[in-house]
Amino acid sequence: MSRIYLDDAGSAPVLPEVREALRDLPNGNPSSPHTEGRAARAALDRARDLAAAALGADRTEISFTSSGTESINLALFGAARRLSKRGVVMTWAAEHQSVIGAVKRLQSEGHSVEVADVDEHGRGDESDVPANAALVSIGLANNEVGTIQPVAGIIARAHEVGALVHVDASSGPRWIPIPEGADLVSLSGHKLGAGRGGILYVRDGVRLDPLLYGGPQEWGRRGGREDVDAATAVAVALSVCVRDQSSRAGEAAHQAGSLRSLLLEMGGVLTGADARLPNFATCAFADRRGEDLLLALDLAGVAASSGSACASGSLDPSHVLLAMGLSLEQALGSLRLTTGYITTDNEVAEAGEVIRSVLKRAPAHA
Amino acid sequence: MSRIYLDDAGSAPVLPEVREALRDLPNGNPSSPHTEGRAARAALDRARDLAAAALGADRTEISFTSSGTESINLALFGAARRLSKRGVVMTWAAEHQSVIGAVKRLQSEGHSVEVADVDEHGRGDESDVPANAALVSIGLANNEVGTIQPVAGIIARAHEVGALVHVDASSGPRWIPIPEGADLVSLSGHKLGAGRGGILYVRDGVRLDPLLYGGPQEWGRRGGREDVDAATAVAVALSVCVRDQSSRAGEAAHQAGSLRSLLLEMGGVLTGADARLPNFATCAFADRRGEDLLLALDLAGVAASSGSACASGSLDPSHVLLAMGLSLEQALGSLRLTTGYITTDNEVAEAGEVIRSVLKRAPAHA
Repeated sequence: MSRIYLDDAGSAPVLPEVREALRDLPNGNPSSPHTEGRAARAALDRARDLAAAALGADRTEISFTSSGTESINLALFGAARRLSKRGVVMTWAAEHQSVIGAVKRLQSEGHSVEVADVDEHGRGDESDVPANAALVSIGLANNEVGTIQPVAGIIARAHEVGALVHVDASSGPRWIPIPEGADLVSLSGHKLGAGRGGILYVRDGVRLDPLLYGGPQEWGRRGGREDVDAATAVAVALSVCVRDQSSRAGEAAHQAGSLRSLLLEMGGVLTGADARLPNFATCAFADRRGEDLLLALDLAGVAASSGSACASGSLDPSHVLLAMGLSLEQALGSLRLTTGYITTDNEVAEAGEVIRSVLKRAPAHA
Repeated sequence: MSRIYLDDAGSAPVLPEVREALRDLPNGNPSSPHTEGRAARAALDRARDLAAAALGADRTEISFTSSGTESINLALFGAARRLSKRGVVMTWAAEHQSVIGAVKRLQSEGHSVEVADVDEHGRGDESDVPANAALVSIGLANNEVGTIQPVAGIIARAHEVGALVHVDASSGPRWIPIPEGADLVSLSGHKLGAGRGGILYVRDGVRLDPLLYGGPQEWGRRGGREDVDAATAVAVALSVCVRDQSSRAGEAAHQAGSLRSLLLEMGGVLTGADARLPNFATCAFADRRGEDLLLALDLAGVAASSGSACASGSLDPSHVLLAMGLSLEQALGSLRLTTGYITTDNEVAEAGEVIRSVLKRAPAHA
């Protein structure tokens, strides 16, 4: 049975360019001075230069990590632990749980933290940044409903009060540009089509405490033997995304638009702001269980999601939807359809038929 | 020109069994409930069961990480931060810099720490464990000179005083068994022939604070999208190593023995205890620079090392050799030759000729 994959935001299929780049990479230790080590070092340098070029950054501003979650944790713990508990670490209630989790941990270590409310679309506002902020973390876009955050305004406001800004660019960089001026930007390889790995951009002059102590790898920001495959994968994927961003965004807007129309027609309440990632079609059904819908869609050949994959083992409602003010009923009836680079118009049409048929027969929950 | 690789301890060549296992692995997100996600989850479960079987552990005791360094940092920070600064965190001066680095960081956070001296072979002793120890970290074997540590005795003494024991098994598990009874055991994928990844064994009942907050992955010990490729690679490599350990150790002892005889004959002073990893031939030359030797050997087709690859970018002398009481001159003249699973007797004989010729002509440094 041919499958239709509408969970690009959960994990993007590995790009053909990435598979090609991973063929025959050297597997020496980049820290070894012999020929085998130097070949691996050269491959790692190439990956770093590619990532730097894609971000308009210097190679010393790029550190490779194992995941978006690691990049986020390194940015937040690394910057906050150097603040000596001066100032407030702040973020918003609809951010990814890796951001919220790190901020809560910082609070338990004695830092002053603030988690600001979001509006009904999951959006933060620059006016939420307090005058005593020292570190501000905002997502490029929300990963559950696609709402694009007012990042440029938040960066400006945060810098006005002298705070560092971390942009969690896990969701969105394959569709929209990352506003300039952030001090720290984290990227997630598997959401870019790399299948693995992560990147942390650290603006020249910003200093971080490492999370992993050991050797002087990654400019002293991350000890441990470098994973040349993962670095290459994430650098190539980022580079492809930056190159193809605007053309892909146009196709996605068309495809996701037709999915949103269908969801509306079937009684869903669309979630997220109008300024959303172009590939997102998300909604809530007050009288249905998201997990039942997912199961029925999956059996019919369509891979979809109810929100963050990281939390999907749990039956708890999404903290994002609750922060947006949805009721428990609505939050439990959420559906997220996200198209990707390989999604075709035919697949969207076929998936539309499947969704229509599933929504017609799925039982309202008791 | 055919190369002879005598730096297995720096990084082991990727095993053919690992390359085979990585063919056509699913690349979905193991946390996604749809078919694509469940296929990835099944592959991850298989890797976890394989690693657990190789260690005689339960699957819930296995967490995959990105590297040996991450496993070590997670073990030490994760356990120590739950101690509420009660008791002493202790290790030995010849341990890997990821252990020493984490312990020093804990000290800067207010923990009581102790770094005990080692003997002239880099060996720790169970009598070094203080009565107020709360967490003790010992290597299975030293990564620079191959000295096997008295792990069983240290575990017994540490448990007698009520301390947790972390065994850094980055070096050695492909050649010797890991003594039983440790609370935490860290493993490094690239030293096992996996090319990447790491494992942390956490004994049932031992609780850790995560380093990476986010989703509930890896039994809540490590947030972040799982890298199924890395997990599979390290699990398969560990499994092969445990299977082939004793047969490989016999061959290696023979090969490394002949290299040690050669080094002695050429004026080297052997380093490390007689109870060393079977594949190690290490020595110090008081009148030569290790870096000059490495360069000359590399040009002649032999990949060797002067010690830890992680520090090889630096011209500082090895902290291990200094801790063993070697002079600065001796420490700067160190050479480490380590054979691997693919090393042949012919290669050892050929390398012997190259080493002999390089050592004859290499200039004594001024």
